[in-house]
Amino acid sequence: MRTPFLLFLGDAREFGAAKTAGGIRQWRPEISIGQLRLPGCGVDLGIPDMTPAEAAAKGVATMVVGVVNIGGFIPPHWVASIIAALEAGLDVAAGMHQRLADIPEVAATARRLGRSIHDVRQPTRSFVPGSGVKRSGKRLLTVGIDCAVGKKYTALAIEKAMRARGLKADFRATGQTGILITGHGVAIDAVVADFISGAAEWLSPDNEPDHWDVIEGQGSLFHPAYAGVTLGLIHGSQPDALVICHEPIRTHLLGLDYPVPDLKTCIERNVEAARLTNPAARAVGISVNTSRMATDSIDDAIRRIEDETGLPCCDPIRHGAGRIVDYLMN
Amino acid sequence: MRTPFLLFLGDAREFGAAKTAGGIRQWRPEISIGQLRLPGCGVDLGIPDMTPAEAAAKGVATMVVGVVNIGGFIPPHWVASIIAALEAGLDVAAGMHQRLADIPEVAATARRLGRSIHDVRQPTRSFVPGSGVKRSGKRLLTVGIDCAVGKKYTALAIEKAMRARGLKADFRATGQTGILITGHGVAIDAVVADFISGAAEWLSPDNEPDHWDVIEGQGSLFHPAYAGVTLGLIHGSQPDALVICHEPIRTHLLGLDYPVPDLKTCIERNVEAARLTNPAARAVGISVNTSRMATDSIDDAIRRIEDETGLPCCDPIRHGAGRIVDYLMN
Repeated sequence: MRTPFLLFLGDAREFGAAKTAGGIRQWRPEISIGQLRLPGCGVDLGIPDMTPAEAAAKGVATMVVGVVNIGGFIPPHWVASIIAALEAGLDVAAGMHQRLADIPEVAATARRLGRSIHDVRQPTRSFVPGSGVKRSGKRLLTVGIDCAVGKKYTALAIEKAMRARGLKADFRATGQTGILITGHGVAIDAVVADFISGAAEWLSPDNEPDHWDVIEGQGSLFHPAYAGVTLGLIHGSQPDALVICHEPIRTHLLGLDYPVPDLKTCIERNVEAARLTNPAARAVGISVNTSRMATDSIDDAIRRIEDETGLPCCDPIRHGAGRIVDYLMN
Repeated sequence: MRTPFLLFLGDAREFGAAKTAGGIRQWRPEISIGQLRLPGCGVDLGIPDMTPAEAAAKGVATMVVGVVNIGGFIPPHWVASIIAALEAGLDVAAGMHQRLADIPEVAATARRLGRSIHDVRQPTRSFVPGSGVKRSGKRLLTVGIDCAVGKKYTALAIEKAMRARGLKADFRATGQTGILITGHGVAIDAVVADFISGAAEWLSPDNEPDHWDVIEGQGSLFHPAYAGVTLGLIHGSQPDALVICHEPIRTHLLGLDYPVPDLKTCIERNVEAARLTNPAARAVGISVNTSRMATDSIDDAIRRIEDETGLPCCDPIRHGAGRIVDYLMN
C-alpha cells in the first residue's frame, strides 16, 4: 500500500467511530498527512483538513477509510468521497467487511483510472482449522474487558518497550487498523469461523526461543457479539503471557446493555482459556486506559488495581509499557 | 434440493469421516436410496451400492457428498464421481467449505447439462453481529465434550420427543448435515467470524412463549480448533436449557493429543457462558453416546453419570430423549 495517507473520517460522531484513523494517526504520525471530514463529523485528529485534490498536491498516495461501524459496511453517502479520491489520483484503502471492490461505481472508477483499492480486512489467503500443536518462540496476547479498550495500543506499546530493551519482538496485527499501521496481519474477525484459531496459528508461526510475538487481541470473552472471535484467537495464539486491558470507569460494554465483567473474573477466565493450548499461560500485567479519567484519579486507580491483582499496571500511552515488560522478564 | 439421494461416501475409512451421509441415512432413511463408495472405503451404511446411472434409474434426484474432513475440502480424486453423477442426470450437493461451484470442471459440466449444484455450507445471506437482546420463546442447545459426540442426533431426538408430547418444537440446523437432513439452517462454522452469534440469533428468531427451538450445537468449548464457533453459538442461541453430549469412553479429542474435559467442568463452563446472554440458562440433561460401548456397561455408566451430575442421562438413539424432555418440563 502506498503511503502517505489522507484519513477519511466520514461523519464519525466520536473518537471510537474513527478509531482506525485515530490509531494510524497515533502510531504512524509521519504518514498521516491530512483528514477528510464530512458535515456532522465530531472528531478532529489535529491534522489539516484537506480535499482529496489538496492531499494529492501534498504527495498523499492513498486515502484510508478510517471509520468503523457495527457490521463493517460502507454507507452510500461515503461513496462520493471515495470516488473523488480516486479521481484526484489517490488509491483507496478500507478495512470494512463490505468490500470497496464490491461497490460497482468504486470498482469501475478505479479500473478506469488505474487506481488500486485495498480491502485490508479481507483475507488474502485461505486457512485451515487450528492444530493446537505447540509452536516454538514466545507469545504475548492482549485481552480485555470489552472492545475498544486499548488492546492494539497496548500490544504496540509492549512491542516498543521490548525492542527498547533489546528483545526480539514483533507486533502481530489481527484487525484492520493494526494492518494499516504495520502493513501486514490478518483481520481475524473476517476469516471463516471454522478457521479463527487456524488463522491465529498462521499469523504467529514457529520462531526463535527468545522471540516474542506481541499479538493484538480482539473483542472480549464477555461480549455477546464477539466472544467467539476472542476465544479462537486465544486458543490459536497459545500465549505464554496475557495482558488484560481495562478501563476502570467503564461500567457497561460499549453500546450494549451488558455490564463489564469484574476484573478478577476476566483475568481468571482468559488465563483458563489460554491454558487449553498453553498450560504455561499466565497474566503478566494490566493495561489501563485512562484517556477518559480525571487526571488526579489515575494514580489511585492504578494503585488499587495493582493491590487487587498483584500485577503491574500502567497506561501504555501515558506511561509506556515498560513496567509490564520488566515484570514479564523478571 | 430435489430428493431422494444417492450418498457418496468417497474413500472414508471410518464412520466419523462419513458422518454427513450417516446422519442423513439415520434421520431420513426414506430418501437415502443408495451409497456410492470408492476403493478403500471402510464404511457401509447398509443400503445398496449404486453407480450414479443405477441411482438415476431408481429415481434418485441428487447425489450428496456425504463425507467430512478437516478444512472441508474436496480432494481431486472425488471429482470424477461428481462429474459422473451430473452426467447421469443427478444434481449434486455438498457441505464443504470448498465450493463445488469453484471446481471449474464441476461448474462447467453442471452448466452444460443444466444440473443444479448445492453448496449447503455456504451462507446464502449476509449477517450482522449479535445484538445480545433477549428474544421471546424458549431455546435448548446441545453442547459437548468434543466434536462428533452426538450433538445433532441429540437435538433431533429432543425435537422428536417434544413433538411426541404435543410441544411446539423446531430443530435448528447449524451444520451441513443438519441442513441436508431438514432442508434449512445455517452452517455456523462457515459464516464470517464476526457474525457467529449474529447468525445464531437470526437462526432462532422471536417465537411464541411456549415454543422451543432445539438448536444443534457445534464443536466444544474445550476444542483448540473450534471453541470460538461453540462460544459464539452459545451466546447467540441464548439457551434456556443446555443438554451436554458425552461419550464416557472417550479420553482424548478426536484426532488430537488433547484430553477431553471432565464432565463437571464442561457443564459448569457451558452454563456460565450461556448465562452471559440468558441468566436463566441451566443444564437439563446429559446425552450419552453409547455406540462404541459394551452393551453390559451402559446401564452402570448412565447411573454413575446421573449420580455425579444430578441430571437425567440417556442415549437418544438407544433410549430416545424422553427422559430429558420430561425433566425439562417438570
